[in-house]
Formats: sequence, C-alpha cells, structure tokens
Amino acid sequence: MRIVGIRRNGGPVEVASLSPDGTEVAVLAPLEDFWADARGRLSREPAGETVAATAVTFVPPVLPGARVICIGLNYLKHAAEGSFAGKDLPPYPTLFARWTQSLTVGGAPVPVPSGEDGLDWEGEVVAYVGAPLADAGPEQALDAVVGYSAFNDITSRRAQKLTSQWILGKNGDHSGPLGPMVPAAEVGDLRDGLRVRTRVNGEVVQDGSTDEMVYTVGDTLSLISRTFTVRPGDLLATGTPAGVGYARTPPWLLQPGDVVEVEIDRLGTLRNPIVGNDARLPGA
Amino acid sequence: MRIVGIRRNGGPVEVASLSPDGTEVAVLAPLEDFWADARGRLSREPAGETVAATAVTFVPPVLPGARVICIGLNYLKHAAEGSFAGKDLPPYPTLFARWTQSLTVGGAPVPVPSGEDGLDWEGEVVAYVGAPLADAGPEQALDAVVGYSAFNDITSRRAQKLTSQWILGKNGDHSGPLGPMVPAAEVGDLRDGLRVRTRVNGEVVQDGSTDEMVYTVGDTLSLISRTFTVRPGDLLATGTPAGVGYARTPPWLLQPGDVVEVEIDRLGTLRNPIVGNDARLPGA
Repeated sequence: MRIVGIRRNGGPVEVASLSPDGTEVAVLAPLEDFWADARGRLSREPAGETVAATAVTFVPPVLPGARVICIGLNYLKHAAEGSFAGKDLPPYPTLFARWTQSLTVGGAPVPVPSGEDGLDWEGEVVAYVGAPLADAGPEQALDAVVGYSAFNDITSRRAQKLTSQWILGKNGDHSGPLGPMVPAAEVGDLRDGLRVRTRVNGEVVQDGSTDEMVYTVGDTLSLISRTFTVRPGDLLATGTPAGVGYARTPPWLLQPGDVVEVEIDRLGTLRNPIVGNDARLPGA
Repeated sequence: MRIVGIRRNGGPVEVASLSPDGTEVAVLAPLEDFWADARGRLSREPAGETVAATAVTFVPPVLPGARVICIGLNYLKHAAEGSFAGKDLPPYPTLFARWTQSLTVGGAPVPVPSGEDGLDWEGEVVAYVGAPLADAGPEQALDAVVGYSAFNDITSRRAQKLTSQWILGKNGDHSGPLGPMVPAAEVGDLRDGLRVRTRVNGEVVQDGSTDEMVYTVGDTLSLISRTFTVRPGDLLATGTPAGVGYARTPPWLLQPGDVVEVEIDRLGTLRNPIVGNDARLPGA
C-alpha cells in the first residue's frame, strides 16, 4: 500500500491509498482524522471514494504542524566526508529541523536559491510516528512508527554552512520531496538493510544501505521523547549515506535542468527536476 | 492593541483583540483569515463578537505550519558568555528552529524534562511577518513585520549541547511562551531600544535593550528570504541579551515551583510557572 496526500478541487488535504498502477486513489480520511488514528486507518480498507489520479493534486500526507526531525550524521562514511572528515562521530544523533513548509512530493520542481552554486542531494528514509511518545523506551518508540517514505533532504550548502547551525540551508522552498508512505508492516526492519540509491541524470551518486545507520529509529525517537513529546504525524528523517555532492573533488551540485532520483527498496523511486531561482519569485 | 489567539468551547483558533483591562476579547477573524491579510485586519475595528476572557482559552495566534525562526547569538554580551566565550562573533545571524508545537502562552506551566537539571531563561522580542518575502531587501523585509511579542525561549541546556545542533533543547513541551502581539505601528523601531528584563521569582536576571542587537530584523529576514520564501504568519525570535542561567557561577537553572517573567517595553509582561516532568507524561 502506498499512502499519499491529495487535494480535490483545491479543497482540504485528504489521505488516500494509491492504486498499484498509480492511476487511481482511494480516499482514506481527512488529514487530521487520519493522524488521530493512523494505525487503525491503515488496518482497514479505504472507506471513501475512488478518484482518478489525474483529478487530484498530490501533496505530502503531513500535518502542517508536524515536526520534521532530521538526523544529520547517521552513516559512518557520510560522517567521514566533507566538513566532518577527521572529526569523531558525535556520541548522540545530531538532530536538526525542517519545517513542513519545505516539504513537497515527487515531480515537483526544486528551485536553486539565489546565492547558491547549486543544490546538494541527500537520499534517505523518513519514518512517520503514529502515537504520542514521552519518555518512551526504544521498543515503544519503534512500535509507534506507522510507515516510511523515500525522502530527498535537498540542501543549500552555502546557507547551511553560514554559521554553526544548519537550518537555513535545510529549508529551501520545495527542498524536501517525500515519496508515498509505505506502512511499517510492509517495510519491516530498517536494520535488515534497505538499499538507498540516489541518481543524478541517471548516474548513481549514492549507494548505501539502511543497515549502516549508527542510530536506529527507536533509539533516536526514545532520546527525543525525553526532551519533548513526539506527536502523531511527526516525522524522523534518518540521515543520508555517503556520496553527497559538495564533498566531491571537484564538488558536484545540482543545476537547473538536472533530474535527481532517490530509489529505496520497498519504498519506490522519488524523482524531482531542478529549476532556477526565478521559479520561487512572485509571479512565477 | 494586544492581539491574542483564542478558542471558544474547544472550537477552532480565532484571533482577537484583548481589552485594556484584560477582561474581554473582541474577535477579529478565524486564524487563517487573519494571516491572509494581517495588516488589513489590524487596521480595521474588530468586526466579531465581544466575549468575556474567562469564557475562552488563550493560545498563540500562530498558524500550525508557521516557521519559528530564532536568532541564537544577537547580543554581544550574550555571545560572550557561556560556551561562546572567547569565540569570534559569527559573521551572519546564527539561526535555529522551533516548531510551533513548542509554543504556548503566558500562565502556562512549563515542565522540566527528565534528564535536565532545570531550564534556562531567554527573554526576547519576537517579530511576526505579515507578507511573503522572497529575495527581499532589508527595508521591504522590515515593512512586512506586522507586530511583536514578548517571548521566553526557554531552553533545555543539556539537550541543546548534546551535539553541534541545538534544536532538541529548543523544543521542549510548552517551552516557548509568547505574550500578546502588539501591532508594529505601536511598537516603533526596535533600534530605538526597548528594555528587555527577565526575572526569576522577582529577581532580575537579564536586563538588556533591543538597541544592543547585532543583526536587525530587516537584515535577518532579508538574508533568510534569499534561501526560502518567508510566509505570512512566520515568526522571527530576535535573540536574548546577556544573563542566562547556565553561564553563571554557579549555574542557576529554573526549578519546579519557580516563576519566570519577561518584561519588555511596550510589549508587556509574560509570566510562567515551572513544573516537574510528570506534567508532560500521559495521564497528567
């Protein structure tokens, strides 16, 4: 099952199930209702209408107020490239923030902001939390995960590195495309190793496996829940494997006209074109 | 005029004007409608009902999907205390993120998370953006600010310092109380110097002035808008003056039973009690 967000005729966001051939969606619930009981909704057959995919607009199935919590350095080989080369691995997961306004879906054009020489790719897995977590243990935290998506944590490196804190460069317009959510039961354990590949114009630039992660989803959500209460609908982006562009010699960044793809076992392929800064200016 | 968010009988959030004596609110608009034309709404007399303050629940007048962009080191004396002593001032504003789920209002109890020795205070001014900003200049950006509030950027220092990135310790439950929003026209220019004082159980612990800021609101929003489009309803927290608790000898952190207040010229006083971690656990 592939879970998507849709709008019909500019109406409110609803959560739906995409048919295997991608031509139809079956409506599950309004967005808020879905996240009030995500596990229950996923366990039942869709109760709403079936609509042609061409008749809806796809959006992330994400609450506007959801937290998008991202792990910065979670694959040893990525932690050893670029600015972090030669530094010790941090003793805790390095967490940074995206706001939901940066999220989008596959197919959406991603603009290179003014002042950037291009954009960098970071293919990774994102986990969706379906139950509240406060001072939760790792097992309880992992049990709360209801699904996973492919994600591209597209980064404005110059803005990211302006100061010690990364968030400016991690929240560019449309810089966080998400694939459809696949229910956790169909994905299994990330520690079994899902292959994560990123391609630029067809050329493989990242090729890792989720069994290389240093910090598991359960451990990380458990740690977070000791400071703030994780809520249904919150997301955890689990970090990217080695092979990002800025760490290469010479650096390789995405330019307008390029196409970037993230393909992850069991989660599918997420494909986005890169466009110029003009696309985000008024009147575009 | 003091602008607040309210809920009536558990209904949706509305924006209202608080009467001078605080006993009544006059409804301005539903939350989404307010931010679709904040400047226009603020320029007109309230059109909605007047309701007793005791009949409503106060909440921040903030869209769930708003970005709460925070400047980390914006007062020279604060940048010279604690972990940053002896380091050069960063050449750009150091920006970190809060999610709106961490926001609350004056009066709300703020829990000390498990694993923290207490909470730290950071009294500061927050600015509300009322118009979209993409590649905006500093003047256009400042013109887009429709109001300001007192804010306490209450911090879980241990979580903040676990790794290089601060956001875990900046998003504790109810850790971001906001005072009512005062329209920008009534506040004037922050560079004229609004006095910012923080008190713990009545004792003054911070006493600064907004004319000490290194990075202005206009310059900072302009910088941000070159990477992502700032949207109506987004917030910019402008940083705290010197005097935070963890940098003291010995350190001084807020404990359950303490009361912390932020008082800012023209913006009023924001007062919150501190409570234990139990308050955030299920069943509390």
